[in-house]
Amino acid sequence: MIPTLKVKPSAELLHLENFIIHHSCDIEHWFKSQWKRYQPPFYASVDLRNSGFKLAPVDTNLFPAGFNNLCETFLPLSIQAVSVAMEKLCPEAKKVIIVAEGHTRNIFYLKHLFSLSEILRKSGVEVRIGTINPEVTETLVLPIDESLSIEIDPIIRNGDYVAIQVDKNTVYRPCAIILNNDLSDGEPEILKKIKQSLIPPLHLGWHIRRKTNHFSYYNEVVKEFSEFTNIDPWLINPYFKQLKNLNFQERLGEEELSLIVSNMLEKIQAKYNQYGITHEPYVVIKADAGTYGMGIMIAKNSEDVLNLNRKMRNKMSVIKGGASVTEVIIQEGIHSEESIDESVAEPVIYMIDHFVVGGFFRVHINKGKDENLNSPGMHFIPQPFETSCIMPDQGRPCDDEANRFYAYGVIARLALVAAAREMKG
Amino acid sequence: MIPTLKVKPSAELLHLENFIIHHSCDIEHWFKSQWKRYQPPFYASVDLRNSGFKLAPVDTNLFPAGFNNLCETFLPLSIQAVSVAMEKLCPEAKKVIIVAEGHTRNIFYLKHLFSLSEILRKSGVEVRIGTINPEVTETLVLPIDESLSIEIDPIIRNGDYVAIQVDKNTVYRPCAIILNNDLSDGEPEILKKIKQSLIPPLHLGWHIRRKTNHFSYYNEVVKEFSEFTNIDPWLINPYFKQLKNLNFQERLGEEELSLIVSNMLEKIQAKYNQYGITHEPYVVIKADAGTYGMGIMIAKNSEDVLNLNRKMRNKMSVIKGGASVTEVIIQEGIHSEESIDESVAEPVIYMIDHFVVGGFFRVHINKGKDENLNSPGMHFIPQPFETSCIMPDQGRPCDDEANRFYAYGVIARLALVAAAREMKG
Repeated sequence: MIPTLKVKPSAELLHLENFIIHHSCDIEHWFKSQWKRYQPPFYASVDLRNSGFKLAPVDTNLFPAGFNNLCETFLPLSIQAVSVAMEKLCPEAKKVIIVAEGHTRNIFYLKHLFSLSEILRKSGVEVRIGTINPEVTETLVLPIDESLSIEIDPIIRNGDYVAIQVDKNTVYRPCAIILNNDLSDGEPEILKKIKQSLIPPLHLGWHIRRKTNHFSYYNEVVKEFSEFTNIDPWLINPYFKQLKNLNFQERLGEEELSLIVSNMLEKIQAKYNQYGITHEPYVVIKADAGTYGMGIMIAKNSEDVLNLNRKMRNKMSVIKGGASVTEVIIQEGIHSEESIDESVAEPVIYMIDHFVVGGFFRVHINKGKDENLNSPGMHFIPQPFETSCIMPDQGRPCDDEANRFYAYGVIARLALVAAAREMKG
Repeated sequence: MIPTLKVKPSAELLHLENFIIHHSCDIEHWFKSQWKRYQPPFYASVDLRNSGFKLAPVDTNLFPAGFNNLCETFLPLSIQAVSVAMEKLCPEAKKVIIVAEGHTRNIFYLKHLFSLSEILRKSGVEVRIGTINPEVTETLVLPIDESLSIEIDPIIRNGDYVAIQVDKNTVYRPCAIILNNDLSDGEPEILKKIKQSLIPPLHLGWHIRRKTNHFSYYNEVVKEFSEFTNIDPWLINPYFKQLKNLNFQERLGEEELSLIVSNMLEKIQAKYNQYGITHEPYVVIKADAGTYGMGIMIAKNSEDVLNLNRKMRNKMSVIKGGASVTEVIIQEGIHSEESIDESVAEPVIYMIDHFVVGGFFRVHINKGKDENLNSPGMHFIPQPFETSCIMPDQGRPCDDEANRFYAYGVIARLALVAAAREMKG
């Protein structure tokens, strides 16, 4: 089911969607030229927002979870794409270890690990799931529903390799290691300088990666894409700004933050005026490194960041892994105007290599359209896309399900090109 | 719906299916090693037969028709696979011409052309369908149902290139030409020495290709595959023999043919005795070059080929394109024991690059299990596979739909490896 946009899409967005559907060959050709120059990441998910006047990515995850939320019908697409990706990255790989996140008690994450391992397994590689959490010293058998459980093994280091000790006499030592741990805790000692293929490479972890760096590359990509589509880049690109040397606890940098917020709100308002948009502008302030909806706040007014109470300052101070936040991204907020049964719905697009393999809506029952939907504990209902994102149909209107999802796939792939350039550095 | 095998599968075949399901990683790894050495054909379809004691390919088509018979749900798989294939074969291709067969009035073939062009189009290339039939001098607009029609344009030669004249001022000259014409009529003058990428290459046409050559390569492939699966190669490989210098009209070579038939029936009977099979052995005699169910007969007895009436001799003498038959393949017949609603069903597996993208059952209402199902005019009812062929599930029995189709995909890919070796020469 395609969610209903609460508002009528603006003429500009309709124009963009129409362009995308009717120029799919040009667009695919443009993407091909990008993939000749830039190796895409092994996998990625991109959070999109559709406000009816703007359609843009707000986050690009290079260690995606949530593969369990994709429609099962399209599982073969993921399997085929993974086999293409593995052929490129490690053609000799017969087996792999998936390095999981530390939070092994999150049932949603465990279900995701199961789905991801099934995709790899059906593509023809043996899979074991491992953890680098030193507290795990023996195999964990974790139920994910009444009939299924998954095993997570401690990863051990053996000289220049990591491995899993299967039993007294058997060591499982694959030639490829799939990272599904975003390294928020820093570069793990156990993975340093190993001779196996690390997919994706360590330097994409949140200990190094910055959202603002990604969106700088995204700026470039959008500039090039907008030139040939002849659209205002703003339609697919949220404003953003970086702020460093911040300390929420000690209230260092608050004034500067307030100024940035104020300037950005003005810039957004100017665009709203240009397009006759009557919404109230807002910005989102997020840790520049990190994920999982921690360290995120909304501001609709420059004073919103000056009068933070202690609870709010605490919330903004730490992210996953307990790292403290000193760098933030201030990003233009995009109103989520998509809804399913009156609940706000945010599309998430999944990619393997340079292929869009599916997506789902993150449907949140109790939140407003300008709040962050990726909150801790993942309190949302996933609504899988029931059509694939690779079937543009010029014969049908652009808000047709297949066409809208195709457009989503195009915008998500722009973020993927940005990630590929970011990876190359 | 999975057809019902009329007989209980033999212990040997069950063992093979079980091996395939439970060693899918080893098998995929083996295939990967093949694709590193041999470039797969752009596309192919393989006709399989399942007799309950034997599962084997009987024909490998390198200019497949019938893409319209695949389940629409899995269309994205074909689109993704085509984009991989095109990236390899002609990465700069922005547009293509599909060179169609001459029989432009066959509605089933037209529907296939539409499906094939849609797959290419959605993968991001512009598509026009052309014909090399010199009788076609202007664009044909051919309806394929109430609401759809397709255009077929005459292909013109422009120096070292072929093209389509779109209008007075516009020439459509793509850098890749997709051949869907099997060249039974010989190598067309208009395509000789063109500088565009010809996909697949001309030398795979039936003017050069021989079934016996393909099955010689298949012998090799099966030998290697059987070594690591530790099965009797006969379980997946039909006996065959070539006979040249035949003239059905003038009854030249009849005796030799009769001797070959007699010897082969004996060899088959010996295998039947070994496995306790009570069926009556038979052989199929087909033109060694050619397709479309012409020039095909069945023999259950060495005398069957000695007493051909005039009608039968005529039928065996010419194939599509009017070429006369002087070379035949005598191939072990495999009883079709699969049925849907009491009708014989023969699986056909489709591949693009090295990916299995779907399949269907050719269901024939009025034919016996030892008759050829690919008869002129395609009088069969296609029954698309409703699950993909790439989802082995070790947790389920091997006659589970997904598992059986996976096994079919494996056997079909063995024929594909043979075709790849044949292509390399």
